[in-house]
Amino acid sequence: MENNLSPSTFIGVRGKGIISFGSGQPDLPPPKEVLSCMPEPEDFKYGLVAGQVYLRKALSKEFKGSASDDFVITNGASEALDLTLRAIGKPKDCILIHKPYYYSYKPLIELNHMKPLYVGTHKGKIDADDFEKKVHKAKAVLINSPSNPTGRIQDIKTLKFIEKVTEDLDIPLLSDEVYKDMIYERENYMLSGPHVVTINSFSKTFDMCGARVGYLYSNDKSIVNGAVRLKTYTSMNTNILAQRMAYHATKVPRKFVDKQVKIWKQRRDLIYEGMCRLGLDVWKPEGAFYILPKVKNPRKFVWDMFRKYNVITYLGEWFGANDRVRFSYALDVSKIEEGLKRVGKYLKKN
Amino acid sequence: MENNLSPSTFIGVRGKGIISFGSGQPDLPPPKEVLSCMPEPEDFKYGLVAGQVYLRKALSKEFKGSASDDFVITNGASEALDLTLRAIGKPKDCILIHKPYYYSYKPLIELNHMKPLYVGTHKGKIDADDFEKKVHKAKAVLINSPSNPTGRIQDIKTLKFIEKVTEDLDIPLLSDEVYKDMIYERENYMLSGPHVVTINSFSKTFDMCGARVGYLYSNDKSIVNGAVRLKTYTSMNTNILAQRMAYHATKVPRKFVDKQVKIWKQRRDLIYEGMCRLGLDVWKPEGAFYILPKVKNPRKFVWDMFRKYNVITYLGEWFGANDRVRFSYALDVSKIEEGLKRVGKYLKKN
Repeated sequence: MENNLSPSTFIGVRGKGIISFGSGQPDLPPPKEVLSCMPEPEDFKYGLVAGQVYLRKALSKEFKGSASDDFVITNGASEALDLTLRAIGKPKDCILIHKPYYYSYKPLIELNHMKPLYVGTHKGKIDADDFEKKVHKAKAVLINSPSNPTGRIQDIKTLKFIEKVTEDLDIPLLSDEVYKDMIYERENYMLSGPHVVTINSFSKTFDMCGARVGYLYSNDKSIVNGAVRLKTYTSMNTNILAQRMAYHATKVPRKFVDKQVKIWKQRRDLIYEGMCRLGLDVWKPEGAFYILPKVKNPRKFVWDMFRKYNVITYLGEWFGANDRVRFSYALDVSKIEEGLKRVGKYLKKN
Repeated sequence: MENNLSPSTFIGVRGKGIISFGSGQPDLPPPKEVLSCMPEPEDFKYGLVAGQVYLRKALSKEFKGSASDDFVITNGASEALDLTLRAIGKPKDCILIHKPYYYSYKPLIELNHMKPLYVGTHKGKIDADDFEKKVHKAKAVLINSPSNPTGRIQDIKTLKFIEKVTEDLDIPLLSDEVYKDMIYERENYMLSGPHVVTINSFSKTFDMCGARVGYLYSNDKSIVNGAVRLKTYTSMNTNILAQRMAYHATKVPRKFVDKQVKIWKQRRDLIYEGMCRLGLDVWKPEGAFYILPKVKNPRKFVWDMFRKYNVITYLGEWFGANDRVRFSYALDVSKIEEGLKRVGKYLKKN
């Protein structure tokens, strides 16, 4: 088992006494507007493959220069990324990503018969020189800031540089903005331009991971139409009731999000300071709700923490960070404290 | 536009006065047990990628010799088929299908960089000799009985022959059983065996297309585990509330389905006899809710019927039947009658 660890070992695993720093999902409830959205007969009819018009219209108000036809509503950001890769690439194409990366990126690229190409980073921050060297080989570039699993954000200067280089080279720039609303050190800078494909989700901002609603947004008609064409065959419309829920989420007052960000920041401070006190080598998270400490023998750490200490953590190697483990701190303060205690106990013994 | 017709031209298109023989979705409402299933906070948490245990357990009671771990709950049968193809095949593999085929089969095979191989049919019935000749070249075989778009069922003798040949050759046999409950001439014969992957959906039997819940079932662990691994990256769990709805559907008394089948059979008789009266060349549908008449200039027929007569039909060439068009008769009797009248008017003029 220890040798067969994979994210699906832990996804959805819950139980009494287990403290899960595993799955990246908020512990907070969705907005009441979402929860009180009731099933109606119309929800059981096929909808447009691109997504319900009302939801796409609501989204187009959030993105300057967008129209509702620039969006495709998907089964989470995961499907948005899969569809985008399938729409733009062909076997043997290279996709440039930065290490450590979200654990789905490498397998998604590979299961589409493409190759990941890695740009160097320093404490999670992209090395612009290395980027410039490698971008020429890429069919597309995939950026994730704030990042899962590091919680780090890319400098605005770097993001603008990446925007420009890819636009000049006419290379699609995929921007996974799933954590765009969870950022603690500055305002988010969203990548934009005619060549940008924004990938986003309602899961994290509105605490609705299980409902699986995400989307892709692009001004490039060939990408949007390609994704709709593919989705017609691979899954058809995204669950209609979930789309109505997402629509209600777009109407939720901004203060809902602000309040949550405050909670995330408190937790960030708690876990970051706690890990520093435990003597762990960590990069300060600036967004999202992950932290990626270095540990000795990560495989043993993850397995022992699970079996002996009832604590779920994710193996860094799934994210291309072989000497680290990922903690999701989307947990109540008391659980974070208890979890840190158990980590402390493990570290003393090992 | 007439030259760019595709299924997504029509999916989800509704409006006053339009009679849609297009999209293959029941007009009947889902069972009240499904409609009255309300959102709960737990529905917004990630679930197991393979699907909720209670739903898989309920399904395992329907399939003799199955365990809950033999199922993967998916975003409709479409995703089940996409995941299965991705799990078993690699680029350039051939997948054997029978013509006319469901319109997603060819593009799904091709977007996974594989090749469709066609087995000959006579009025929709598989030619066993041709099957035996071609099966050796196939990585997998995909059977759909009752068939979309023909409504035809394969003879039990043929199905048993296909079961045996593929088992002897150790070739995965994918059986799209989406219409297994809608059959008018005899009991359904479900393909089974250690090499069979059953693909099914709650959409048609329980009138819940828009909710997108389907599944794959196989006793072959490598296929099931492969599909779960892929789904971890491509879309994660299927919408949890929709899975709860599907679970409630499994508890609906059989008489719900029996009642509906009676309605479908009545409609089948009506449209089949109506088309015969109009002098159309048709094969008598034996299951599902489709009929596939031969027409002159099908592209003009589909476009004119839509633009001039407010009637949606699907182009036969999407199904590999270039000289035909598909009618879905999942419609109220009065609409079928009115639709047939409009077809009659068109035929008189053309």
